[in-house]
Amino acid sequence: MSGARRIFRIPGRFGMRRGGALDEVQVAYESWGELNAARDNAVLIFTGLSPSAHAASSAADPTPGWWEEMIGPSRPIDTRRFHVICVNSLGSCFGSTGPASPDPATGAPYRLDFPVLTLEDVAAAGRRLLEHLGIDVLHTLVGPSMGGMTALAYAAQNPGKARRLLLISCAARALPYAIALRSLQREMVLQDPAFAAGRYDAAAGPLPGMRMARKLGMITYRSAREWEQRFGRERIAQERQGGDGYAPDFEIESYLEANAQKFIGQFDPACYLALSRASDLFDLAEHGGSVAAGLGRLGVETAMVIGVETDVLYPIHQQRELAAGLAQAGVPVVLEELPCIQGHDAFLVDMDRFRPPVARFFAQDQPRRRGLLGQLLDDGRLDAALPESRVQHRARLHIAGAADHRAGHRIADDGIAALQGP
Amino acid sequence: MSGARRIFRIPGRFGMRRGGALDEVQVAYESWGELNAARDNAVLIFTGLSPSAHAASSAADPTPGWWEEMIGPSRPIDTRRFHVICVNSLGSCFGSTGPASPDPATGAPYRLDFPVLTLEDVAAAGRRLLEHLGIDVLHTLVGPSMGGMTALAYAAQNPGKARRLLLISCAARALPYAIALRSLQREMVLQDPAFAAGRYDAAAGPLPGMRMARKLGMITYRSAREWEQRFGRERIAQERQGGDGYAPDFEIESYLEANAQKFIGQFDPACYLALSRASDLFDLAEHGGSVAAGLGRLGVETAMVIGVETDVLYPIHQQRELAAGLAQAGVPVVLEELPCIQGHDAFLVDMDRFRPPVARFFAQDQPRRRGLLGQLLDDGRLDAALPESRVQHRARLHIAGAADHRAGHRIADDGIAALQGP
Repeated sequence: MSGARRIFRIPGRFGMRRGGALDEVQVAYESWGELNAARDNAVLIFTGLSPSAHAASSAADPTPGWWEEMIGPSRPIDTRRFHVICVNSLGSCFGSTGPASPDPATGAPYRLDFPVLTLEDVAAAGRRLLEHLGIDVLHTLVGPSMGGMTALAYAAQNPGKARRLLLISCAARALPYAIALRSLQREMVLQDPAFAAGRYDAAAGPLPGMRMARKLGMITYRSAREWEQRFGRERIAQERQGGDGYAPDFEIESYLEANAQKFIGQFDPACYLALSRASDLFDLAEHGGSVAAGLGRLGVETAMVIGVETDVLYPIHQQRELAAGLAQAGVPVVLEELPCIQGHDAFLVDMDRFRPPVARFFAQDQPRRRGLLGQLLDDGRLDAALPESRVQHRARLHIAGAADHRAGHRIADDGIAALQGP
Repeated sequence: MSGARRIFRIPGRFGMRRGGALDEVQVAYESWGELNAARDNAVLIFTGLSPSAHAASSAADPTPGWWEEMIGPSRPIDTRRFHVICVNSLGSCFGSTGPASPDPATGAPYRLDFPVLTLEDVAAAGRRLLEHLGIDVLHTLVGPSMGGMTALAYAAQNPGKARRLLLISCAARALPYAIALRSLQREMVLQDPAFAAGRYDAAAGPLPGMRMARKLGMITYRSAREWEQRFGRERIAQERQGGDGYAPDFEIESYLEANAQKFIGQFDPACYLALSRASDLFDLAEHGGSVAAGLGRLGVETAMVIGVETDVLYPIHQQRELAAGLAQAGVPVVLEELPCIQGHDAFLVDMDRFRPPVARFFAQDQPRRRGLLGQLLDDGRLDAALPESRVQHRARLHIAGAADHRAGHRIADDGIAALQGP
C-alpha cells in the first residue's frame, strides 16, 4: 500500500444509480500541493480503468506514479499552484470499496454480489470526498480514458462545480466496436473455470482468463502502426521458444505475454469486470436526453479535449464530437488532435506530445465569455459536425472562417488556445 | 458433405515445408464450367481460413456457395468461359487432410501431432491437384484473405504457372497487429480445459474457447464504422436479457454470440489452430530474400490487387505494397481501393462493390507488355512506396504524373484498368 494513500469513509449508506446501496464505503485518494485559502485551486483527476490514485510521487511515497511527468512542481499540472487530488475509482481494488472488498454484512468479498456499477457512482463517490475536503468548486476536472467519462458524469451530476474541464482520449459514450472488445474481455474472465462464478481463490483466481483479457486490452490500447515500427516480424530467439507447435514465434507475442503477466497479479477479476462494464454502460445522453443536452448542462467555463489519431478504442471522431458539442453549448473549447502512434495509451507514454497542450491549458487564464468557436458556429461559418479530416483543428478553423488567421497568431482576449501556436 | 465435392488422393508421401510428411493426403475440391481443349481456361481459387471448396452452387449441389454471386454463368468469374476450381485448404476440415483427419499410422486424428502447416504446403497440395487434372498453366489464380497469401505461395513455388493473379484483402506477410490478434485467438482455444491438449471430444470440444476466438475473429473481420451504423448503442430487448450482472446488454453482443454459435459446430479446433498459425508464419520474403524479390519471381503477366479501406486485419497499405512491388517487378497491375465499410470481410458481403473490378479483370484481354504503372515507376514519376492517403489509386496516378488524365479516360492499349472508369 502506498504511504501517501488516504482513505475517506463515506458516512451512512451510499445509494447506487442502478439500484442497491453500499455501507461503509471507502474512497482512497492521494493529493499533491496545498489547497489555498479561497479553496479554489483544486484539481480533481479521475483515472482510467486500471490505475490507482498514485498518479505521482511525493515525500510520503517516492515511487513514480502513473502520470509522474504530468504532476509536480513546474510540471504541466503544477503543484506549486494547484492542489491536485487523484481518486481511486469506486469499484477498483486499490483502497476504494469495490467487488473485492468485504461486504460488511457478511465479511466475505462482494464479488458478483456487488451492485451494478456505473461511472456516475464512481463520480458520486469522488464528489462525496470533495465535500468532505471542503472543496465545492473545482479549478479543473481532469480525466483520461474511463476517467474522462467519469469526469463527464461528475460535471453532469454537479453542474457548475468544475470551472474547467480537461478530457483526454475519451468519449460521450462507447460505440459498438469498443463494447464488443470489452464484452469479449469480460467473457474471457467469466468463462475461466477458475473464476468459479465469482468464488475464485483470491491468491490465484482466473489467471488464464485475466491474462488473455489483458492481452486483448493491450491490443486495443496501442496501435498497429506502433507495433509495426517496434516489432515488425521479429522472431523470438530460438532458445526462448518453447518447442511445441503453438509456442510463441514472434516478439509481439512475447511482449503481450510479459505485459499480461505483470497485470494479472495486481488486479482483482471481479473489480475488472465491474469497471469494464461500467465503461460500456456510460452514456452522457442519459443526462438530458442527448449527448448535446448532456454537454449543455455541465456548466464549465472552458474545456480542452485531447485525442490521438491512432486510438482504436475511442477514435478521434469521438473527441471531435465532444469538442463540437461543448462549442455548441457555448463553452470555449480547444481540440487537440495528436499524431501519436501509441494509440489509446499515448497519454501514458507519449509525454513529449501530451505535456505541451496540458501545460497550455493550465497556464491559461481563460476569460469567462463565449469564445470564437461558439461565435463561428453561431455565424454558420463552422459546421458543428466537424469534418473527419486528419488536419489539425487550428487548420480547420483557419479554413472554416478565420481567413486572415496565421498559425501561431493569438486571437486577443478570446481564450481560444487552439489558435495559439504551441 | 457436398454432392459436388470431389476428392483427389495424392499418391505417395507428401513432404511438409517445415519438416515431417503425410501419407494418403486428400485434397477436396469443386469445379464449375468446362476445361477447354487447350487446357488454358482454368481459374484456381484458394479460400480464406474457414470456407470449404463450395464457392458456388451447381447441379450437383444447389446450395449457395460462399462466393455465389461471383462465380457462374454471366457472373464476374464466368463459368461459360472458365473452368473454375476451388480447393479446400490442406489443414482444413472440409474434405482435405488436416489435423482432424485420422493418421493412417494410428487411425486416430492427428490433432496436435499434425506437422507444422504452412501456406506453402496448402499451395503445394493445390499444385498436385492441378497436375493430376492435367492443367499446367492457370488462366487466373485467385485468392481472398488467407487464400491470397496461398496464391502468392503457389506462384512463388511455381513461377510462370499462373498467367494472371487476383489478390484480394491479403498481404505479403502478416504484421504484428494481425499476429497478436490471431495468437490470442489460438490461446483462447488452447487454454480451454476442454481442449485437453488436443485430446478433446470431437462432438463437443473446447466450445467456449472456439466461441471466443470466433468473436475476436469477427471483430477483426468487420469494422467499427459498420457496427456503428448497424448497431449503435441499441440495447437487447429486456425479455432477452439474462438478468444477471454480466448478461449481454447490447445488440452488438448478441450479434457476435449468434455468429459464434453458428461457427463452433462446424470447424475443428485443431484445424483452426493450424490454419491460423500458418497465416502468421507466411512471409513472401522467404521466397527470394525480400518481398520485392518474391514478387519478382512469380512470373505472372498481369495482376489485380483489391483492398478495402476499413480492413484492420490486412490494412490497405499492405495491398498498396503488393501492387507497388508487382509494378516494380514489371507486372502490369491494377490496384483497386474499395470504400466498403465492412472491413476485411467485404469481399464476402459487399458484392456490389466487389463484382465490378473482378468482372473487369476477367473481361480484360491484357496485352503482354509492361504497363503504364511500371513505366511511371521507372521514370521516377511515381514513388514505389505509394503514399498512404485515402484517395483513389487513379487520383494518385493523376497527381503523380498523368497530368492530362481525366477520370474515366482510357489510356489506349496500356492495360491499366486503374485508369479506366468503372
